[in-house]
Amino acid sequence: MGRGLHVAVVGATGAVGQQMLETLEDRNFEIETLTLLSSKRSAGTKVTFKDEEYTVQEAVPESFEGVHIALFSAGGSVSQSLAPEAVKRGAIVIDNTSAFRMDENTPLVVPEVNEADLHQHNGIIANPNCSTIQMVAAIEPIRKAYGLKKVIVSTYQAVSGAGNEAAKELYSQTKAILNNEPIEPSIMPVKGDKKHYQIAFNAIPQIDKFQDNGYTFEEMKMINETKKIMHMPKLEVAATCVRLPIETGHSESVYIELDRDDATVEDIKQLLKEAPGVTLQDDPAEQLYPMPADCVGKRDVFVGRIRKDLDRANGFHLWVVSDNLLKGAAWNSVQIAESLQKLNLV
Amino acid sequence: MGRGLHVAVVGATGAVGQQMLETLEDRNFEIETLTLLSSKRSAGTKVTFKDEEYTVQEAVPESFEGVHIALFSAGGSVSQSLAPEAVKRGAIVIDNTSAFRMDENTPLVVPEVNEADLHQHNGIIANPNCSTIQMVAAIEPIRKAYGLKKVIVSTYQAVSGAGNEAAKELYSQTKAILNNEPIEPSIMPVKGDKKHYQIAFNAIPQIDKFQDNGYTFEEMKMINETKKIMHMPKLEVAATCVRLPIETGHSESVYIELDRDDATVEDIKQLLKEAPGVTLQDDPAEQLYPMPADCVGKRDVFVGRIRKDLDRANGFHLWVVSDNLLKGAAWNSVQIAESLQKLNLV
Repeated sequence: MGRGLHVAVVGATGAVGQQMLETLEDRNFEIETLTLLSSKRSAGTKVTFKDEEYTVQEAVPESFEGVHIALFSAGGSVSQSLAPEAVKRGAIVIDNTSAFRMDENTPLVVPEVNEADLHQHNGIIANPNCSTIQMVAAIEPIRKAYGLKKVIVSTYQAVSGAGNEAAKELYSQTKAILNNEPIEPSIMPVKGDKKHYQIAFNAIPQIDKFQDNGYTFEEMKMINETKKIMHMPKLEVAATCVRLPIETGHSESVYIELDRDDATVEDIKQLLKEAPGVTLQDDPAEQLYPMPADCVGKRDVFVGRIRKDLDRANGFHLWVVSDNLLKGAAWNSVQIAESLQKLNLV
Repeated sequence: MGRGLHVAVVGATGAVGQQMLETLEDRNFEIETLTLLSSKRSAGTKVTFKDEEYTVQEAVPESFEGVHIALFSAGGSVSQSLAPEAVKRGAIVIDNTSAFRMDENTPLVVPEVNEADLHQHNGIIANPNCSTIQMVAAIEPIRKAYGLKKVIVSTYQAVSGAGNEAAKELYSQTKAILNNEPIEPSIMPVKGDKKHYQIAFNAIPQIDKFQDNGYTFEEMKMINETKKIMHMPKLEVAATCVRLPIETGHSESVYIELDRDDATVEDIKQLLKEAPGVTLQDDPAEQLYPMPADCVGKRDVFVGRIRKDLDRANGFHLWVVSDNLLKGAAWNSVQIAESLQKLNLV
């Protein structure tokens, strides 16, 4: 601490980039110089940070001269080409894309779970996928106390995870349907895929492209990233990822089987009440449970609907909700930057 | 067959009642006399059936004189008081409420799964919960071939399951949010519960009221009804039920563990392709999978996203979608009536 840093934000005009700037401002992160970068297309955009106006510049290798921390969120191909250039110039890259997540020399970090992995970095630190982050933050306190064998998750994901234009499509399509006008889906479920489907008043069981094994890339991200972050290569993990007509806030129905079978619902609630970054919202008598509409703009992971499985003594069901642009992206990235400072790694 | 029946529809002005009339018309169900009944409040409403106008009458015990089949869908308390009166007068009641489902003398029937249970009826036949019906129709062909140990389901349920006024609330609330007007939720998640929440652009993890064990009544319905319909009191079943901003079409992310561990994805696909009442929609290369927007107005249960669990050889994941007002309610009820005719039970 005590030293103002030169921070670069790559993808400053995007949905996550905007949240990164807001989070840096909210956290009063000590910045001496701020460089805002984007693709050529968005360069020239004016952005306000702490009452000061900045002009977003096109990201090129030379943009990273003198930068201490570069927060990347401009797509995998931008990270692939420019993150190494930033590292070459002395920056630590915190990358919000999937480009380096499964690289064995790149730590994949959720500070509440594996902050210590930051010590082994080689210049790039990967920020996990949004849906992975909130799940591991919720189950890590339980794993620590009771061990963990198996995870089965079904997600309820918001469109903003696919960027600003996806959110725009949701609203314009919703409006068209309410007005009985024809719709022409062009973004959802995956902009770069062959077919596009109605997202308004619908559920699309595809996030990211399909892999050869029938799982989508989003599902494989949740499976592989969870094992890596928790250092449990043998952990059983399965995921079904679904896109819904919600702007922001991912929800997850999570089933876990623990090593031990003596945990009670009250034990789990107590653990989550004390867990960092987690807010327990669980009181059926008062109809208290997490919902996406309530989590927007908040940094925590919200957990509720905690139930013991009726058949297996080591089984529990949870409902996990978080702002996918904050803990799922911008806040986790800034939190990694804060951890780097705390550990004197920057 | 060959004999025109006197059919009564109780709850004829409701969301399901309307679908029952449409289904009876679509199926060209042989009706000699049609009696349309409702609460006192809705009595007097005019309803058209096969180009003929009917006036809906208040349901009273005497309404059932001479009725052969009475389709009930007017809430549990109406069924509780009037179904026995109908039976007393010689009618067979097909009840779409939860009033008699778990009664041990009442068969609970999904014709594709347990049509033979109709032989043991005592005047009342219960139609299962919407979310249960589509799930058991999808997994029964798999169970028959490979046995079944465990089911874990997370649902993505449409608002029309809560009636016409819930659908109205979704649309008026959505409109208000798009116009930046304040909203006042008054129906969702459960009209008769204490608190009401925004359903537009949100996900509410509560359907029906909470039970003492922390599960909702909807979740317990799925658990208990599945065991009863499949005649498997020891089957492991767990459910998490979630309401979403979708008018019609329930989706379900279903994980199953089979007795045998030698089934392949191709085997499961072949079984479902041949299964009655099921349409297989599963081709990742063509982004083909079931979605609620595509299932509306169709009678089948649509299954896709079939994947083998990556850790357990007997584990499979499915995505199951159906029109909750048709196979989930009206069509299954009419289908029971058709089965009764076919089996010469009416």
